[in-house]
Amino acid sequence: MADLKSTFLDVYSTLKSDLLQDPSFEFTHESRQWLERMLDYNVRGGKLNRGLSVVDSYKLLKQGKELTDKETFLACALGWCIEWLQAYFLVLDDIMDNSVTRRGQPCWFRQPKVGMIAINDGILLRNHIHRILKKHFKGMPYYVDLVDLFNEVEFQTACGQMIDLITTFDGEKDLSKYSLQIHRRIVQYKTAYYSFYLPVACALLMAGENLESHTGVKDVLIDMGIYFQVQDDYLDCFADPETLGKIGTDIEDFKCSWLVVKALERCSEEQTKILYENYGKSEPSNVAKVKALYKEIDLEAVFMEYERESYEKLTKLIEAHQSKEIQAVLKSFLAKIYKRQK
Amino acid sequence: MADLKSTFLDVYSTLKSDLLQDPSFEFTHESRQWLERMLDYNVRGGKLNRGLSVVDSYKLLKQGKELTDKETFLACALGWCIEWLQAYFLVLDDIMDNSVTRRGQPCWFRQPKVGMIAINDGILLRNHIHRILKKHFKGMPYYVDLVDLFNEVEFQTACGQMIDLITTFDGEKDLSKYSLQIHRRIVQYKTAYYSFYLPVACALLMAGENLESHTGVKDVLIDMGIYFQVQDDYLDCFADPETLGKIGTDIEDFKCSWLVVKALERCSEEQTKILYENYGKSEPSNVAKVKALYKEIDLEAVFMEYERESYEKLTKLIEAHQSKEIQAVLKSFLAKIYKRQK
Repeated sequence: MADLKSTFLDVYSTLKSDLLQDPSFEFTHESRQWLERMLDYNVRGGKLNRGLSVVDSYKLLKQGKELTDKETFLACALGWCIEWLQAYFLVLDDIMDNSVTRRGQPCWFRQPKVGMIAINDGILLRNHIHRILKKHFKGMPYYVDLVDLFNEVEFQTACGQMIDLITTFDGEKDLSKYSLQIHRRIVQYKTAYYSFYLPVACALLMAGENLESHTGVKDVLIDMGIYFQVQDDYLDCFADPETLGKIGTDIEDFKCSWLVVKALERCSEEQTKILYENYGKSEPSNVAKVKALYKEIDLEAVFMEYERESYEKLTKLIEAHQSKEIQAVLKSFLAKIYKRQK
Repeated sequence: MADLKSTFLDVYSTLKSDLLQDPSFEFTHESRQWLERMLDYNVRGGKLNRGLSVVDSYKLLKQGKELTDKETFLACALGWCIEWLQAYFLVLDDIMDNSVTRRGQPCWFRQPKVGMIAINDGILLRNHIHRILKKHFKGMPYYVDLVDLFNEVEFQTACGQMIDLITTFDGEKDLSKYSLQIHRRIVQYKTAYYSFYLPVACALLMAGENLESHTGVKDVLIDMGIYFQVQDDYLDCFADPETLGKIGTDIEDFKCSWLVVKALERCSEEQTKILYENYGKSEPSNVAKVKALYKEIDLEAVFMEYERESYEKLTKLIEAHQSKEIQAVLKSFLAKIYKRQK
């Protein structure tokens, strides 16, 4: 595993060096320097879960057979394309959300001399995906499908972001807009497609599979992605910030969190009034009132029950799959996230 | 011509309606409304020169034969893809440049309730290009080439924007960074590829041509794009704002304009000092001093001479082409821009 990670990081160096020498552009010394710094700051520093899962999934699809160097390189390169995609979204989301820190350091746009240039850096990150795909996959029979896949998933993510943004920042903070239905839509499009479906879809294409014949796989992964985001919402409020590595601010930010949606379902009239009065305000006293209410209606237990049910449902769906290899891929995803604490 | 424009606008309505019904996303009522307003505001309102030139070029390549309805629709759809690309760049550029107006109305991000959501709207515009290509061109033999072409040109434009941004906003305003070489690079990548090469490349692909065998066409169009941008730089300072439809601010904005580059080449030591002291400042007295200097060293005449030479050079390059159809395409582009006043 440590070995896979170091191979994966080596591939990053190769891809970066290709991009810094890209013959489609005449770099100046300053622009090459800028780009290298921008890539190291935004692409390399993540947990790399999404990227590494492409390689893991491809191995499982190959029934654990030793991969050739070429296969390993290509699977890593696809994994990095997802990391690049993630970096692109995060750089731009941080500007839109006016965030302060990301992965334990200031957001890129807050770096001196960067500012709004970060928007163009985000665009460059997005474009790098296609530079990587073109350079390394152009001759492959699945090249078009790969390009279409990245485009489709990027589109769905941007659509999810759109409903998140226009729901959350609609001028007046009105909780009556929030429901499980809108929560599911935001989460499915904004997170599940690119974080869960995309890595497996990449591995399937590399293994010569046709994505049209695996719509069942997509459905399970989307459900898993939704469960993952519900965990995220839960941890944002209930996890120890020390373990989580960040301090949650969903309540202050008036986020359409699974918790507030569930609370709205379960509150008495009086409790609903408290929620409306305190949700989306940044003063600690308001936040404390919302948290106290969540405890009062025992949202922790509601989440535990949701977690148990989700696990059961996902396991059944996975076991209904005919292919043992695909079952293994899906089970490894589920095992990684079930009952996670961070 | 009026007829072509109305056909072209009809195709916009069809494409928009497809996007508002896209089955890859579950729209809410609010998000569909938002998207429609955003498209009408940002995509439809331009001069449409780039988009229409795809149709014009395709007709010339077909030797003026009547196009079928299907061909007309597809050529218009490709034209609109370029208009979408342009809208995407403009929405984001306006945020990066902190611009106030665009096409005679406030920039999109300055609309109430929009703000930084405009960043995601820009991303959506970019993604729509691939939705349009996939829906209407997926079965075509040139589909992959088309997708690669749009990706490559977008990449080059973003790279041009990168050197423009990091050269212009490098903290200290230092004119010694500016040269004809850096001006050419910014202009070639940021403007020429997508405004001049892309429309013709789209038409060539639709006509069944291989872009690899037309690198000469690309070179002429890039030169023409550079000439076009030099005109733009000239008009920004010397055109009547009434005719131009806007008030130029390149001097205030410390832009790497062809004029300042040429001025730096021609100034005496004393004049250079004046330029350094006044360029990039927003007070009218500073701007007036720069303009007076431009008159003093007769930049208008320098430009006239450049325009004459460019026309001669481009005409020679065009006439060296073997194909009469391609010559006609290139000549029509040149005729549209030669000695333009706006």
